[in-house]
Amino acid sequence: MNSISSFQFDHEQLSITWADGAQSVLLALWLRDHCQMPASRNPANGQRLLNITDIPMDIGIANASLEGRCMTVEFTADGHRSEFDTDWLRANCYCLNPQTDDRSEAGKALWERESFSRGLPRCHYAEYCNHADARRGTLQAVRDFGFVILDGVDCASGEIIKVIEQFGFVRETNYGPLFDVRTTVEPNNLAFTNLGLGCHLDNPYRDPVPGLQLLHCLESSTSGGESILQDGFMAADILRRENPDHFALLSRSWINFRFRDTSSDLQARVPFIEINDLDQVIKVRFNNRSIDTLKLPAETLRQFYPAYRHYAEILERDNLQIVFKLQAGELMLFDNTRILHARKAYSTSGTRHLQGAYSDLDGLYSSLRQLEASA
Amino acid sequence: MNSISSFQFDHEQLSITWADGAQSVLLALWLRDHCQMPASRNPANGQRLLNITDIPMDIGIANASLEGRCMTVEFTADGHRSEFDTDWLRANCYCLNPQTDDRSEAGKALWERESFSRGLPRCHYAEYCNHADARRGTLQAVRDFGFVILDGVDCASGEIIKVIEQFGFVRETNYGPLFDVRTTVEPNNLAFTNLGLGCHLDNPYRDPVPGLQLLHCLESSTSGGESILQDGFMAADILRRENPDHFALLSRSWINFRFRDTSSDLQARVPFIEINDLDQVIKVRFNNRSIDTLKLPAETLRQFYPAYRHYAEILERDNLQIVFKLQAGELMLFDNTRILHARKAYSTSGTRHLQGAYSDLDGLYSSLRQLEASA
Repeated sequence: MNSISSFQFDHEQLSITWADGAQSVLLALWLRDHCQMPASRNPANGQRLLNITDIPMDIGIANASLEGRCMTVEFTADGHRSEFDTDWLRANCYCLNPQTDDRSEAGKALWERESFSRGLPRCHYAEYCNHADARRGTLQAVRDFGFVILDGVDCASGEIIKVIEQFGFVRETNYGPLFDVRTTVEPNNLAFTNLGLGCHLDNPYRDPVPGLQLLHCLESSTSGGESILQDGFMAADILRRENPDHFALLSRSWINFRFRDTSSDLQARVPFIEINDLDQVIKVRFNNRSIDTLKLPAETLRQFYPAYRHYAEILERDNLQIVFKLQAGELMLFDNTRILHARKAYSTSGTRHLQGAYSDLDGLYSSLRQLEASA
Repeated sequence: MNSISSFQFDHEQLSITWADGAQSVLLALWLRDHCQMPASRNPANGQRLLNITDIPMDIGIANASLEGRCMTVEFTADGHRSEFDTDWLRANCYCLNPQTDDRSEAGKALWERESFSRGLPRCHYAEYCNHADARRGTLQAVRDFGFVILDGVDCASGEIIKVIEQFGFVRETNYGPLFDVRTTVEPNNLAFTNLGLGCHLDNPYRDPVPGLQLLHCLESSTSGGESILQDGFMAADILRRENPDHFALLSRSWINFRFRDTSSDLQARVPFIEINDLDQVIKVRFNNRSIDTLKLPAETLRQFYPAYRHYAEILERDNLQIVFKLQAGELMLFDNTRILHARKAYSTSGTRHLQGAYSDLDGLYSSLRQLEASA
């Protein structure tokens, strides 16, 4: 780690020059707020014990001194003394370190069909279960590409739940803890027919939307029924490059989605493209089946339609879609805030039986961070 | 319902004057997109069968005619014919109807202590289970005020799960499907001590955050341990009124939250105050224990701290908080995207035992819409 080559302080801030020449300038208030001493933080779990209202806004630095790797700061006002490990200061300093962000488009590998010319991200399920390396690689694929295929998963009903329990928790919905995707009589959703389905994300009418979807193939003897995946973050990025105004409209004009059957009435008011404070994409939604009546103001609506159609047209481009036929024993796991999926129509002879289930991204990312920390 | 007193059309739009004088001006494109005919919509579930890319952007109206309650529109380009029920047109027209939005602050009753001088929203659980009216009123309280208290709930472990299953689904987390809130040895979270806890929302480090929290009191014989609730939407509104710049900073400067123990590392980058496209509050987060290192740019940080402290100071105002002691058999159910909760410290003699669980808002709102539609 880096050591401190020199430092100085005044009432307002502590300025550090590191051995590699990097500079940190740290506000007294930030230092007090981030005190790591046992009176300020629970030593066992790191939870903060003090409230921001415990700290006077005009708090200043009365003294600062360095001994080995320990920077001691004494504060005006309450005379509180904080000791900071210099490694902690370097790793946490807001001048030199970015925020943690593994969910926005910023750190991800956006892809198109050609990105996988050497094969799709996949893993044998037995490997996944028995080797931390395989598990880490698999979850990293979900983080970076938004999806992964597991093969060799037992073709048993309910096995999908066990897969989820390896990294997180099942999100039960009105479709049940798991749902069967096959042709049914009087289906409540077009998914349960043999029709083709255009590229979409599931459940945009649900807030919060389930962050992960799994589809496990138990039987596949029909002709047709190929699966299609595509990267919604890439599509949003293309939209932004081709027409920034269209991108802005779809992120700033929130619309209604809805799904209704005899036992449910699910509604959400959300945007097609959800962005963060840095205008980075964090979630996308798209599902022509469940867009509710558009009730944007008349002048917005006139501009919205061309933007909406442009986005939909990008989502239909062949070069953005990967097409493959899920075989019995294969399971695809994908980020339902990023990856659109579709399927081609299939024959009525033969059987196509998938089981699906939802989960959330928090559990998967938590498991991944644990695996990366212990690697 | 209203009837049409006159209408006219040109290539671009259909203009309607209703019997009550209201005006609708509907774009040809919107009309085609919202066609309700069986070729455009699945008659059973209302799901849209056509894609926006199926519709030419220059589609126009070739003819329009009215017969009784049926407005027939013929389109240029593909010659498609749509029949609209006039009641549908009136109820869905974007000129006369707002978007559906029951989650933002806009339609809710923001409250302070005095708002409940005549008592808190509550319901007997037996009533809730047996009468649709009681169930509807209870769920409406959660929508409008953000919380409700159920009493007479069996003091049995796990009963809380049955309560959730009445309106939605359990959101399992790393704390389990349910968790016990009582003093434990070597707790992984300060919640599981007898310390007081300041006003907070749960799990801001989780994305998506669980939208509902339930706390069920099984035993209450300590002194202290009173519960506190307050309306985070009201607090955000006060902040906006007292200092619009502070409000803007807390909604536009996203920060990191984090919780880590031996088996979890949960992180999210989210704002204190989440707003929609209309700058209305849709979710709030606040939890001093789990705010991760603040790594905002230096110039933002200087402005952020006074805004953050201002918000925290509002959250400590007595007149915004309701204080009550949950008795054995009582269960509080609250919107964890809106309502902050806290508890006072309690004695080590006697027993305080709550069970907690999370759920999501989608299930509750869906149940409520069903109850309201059949009322």
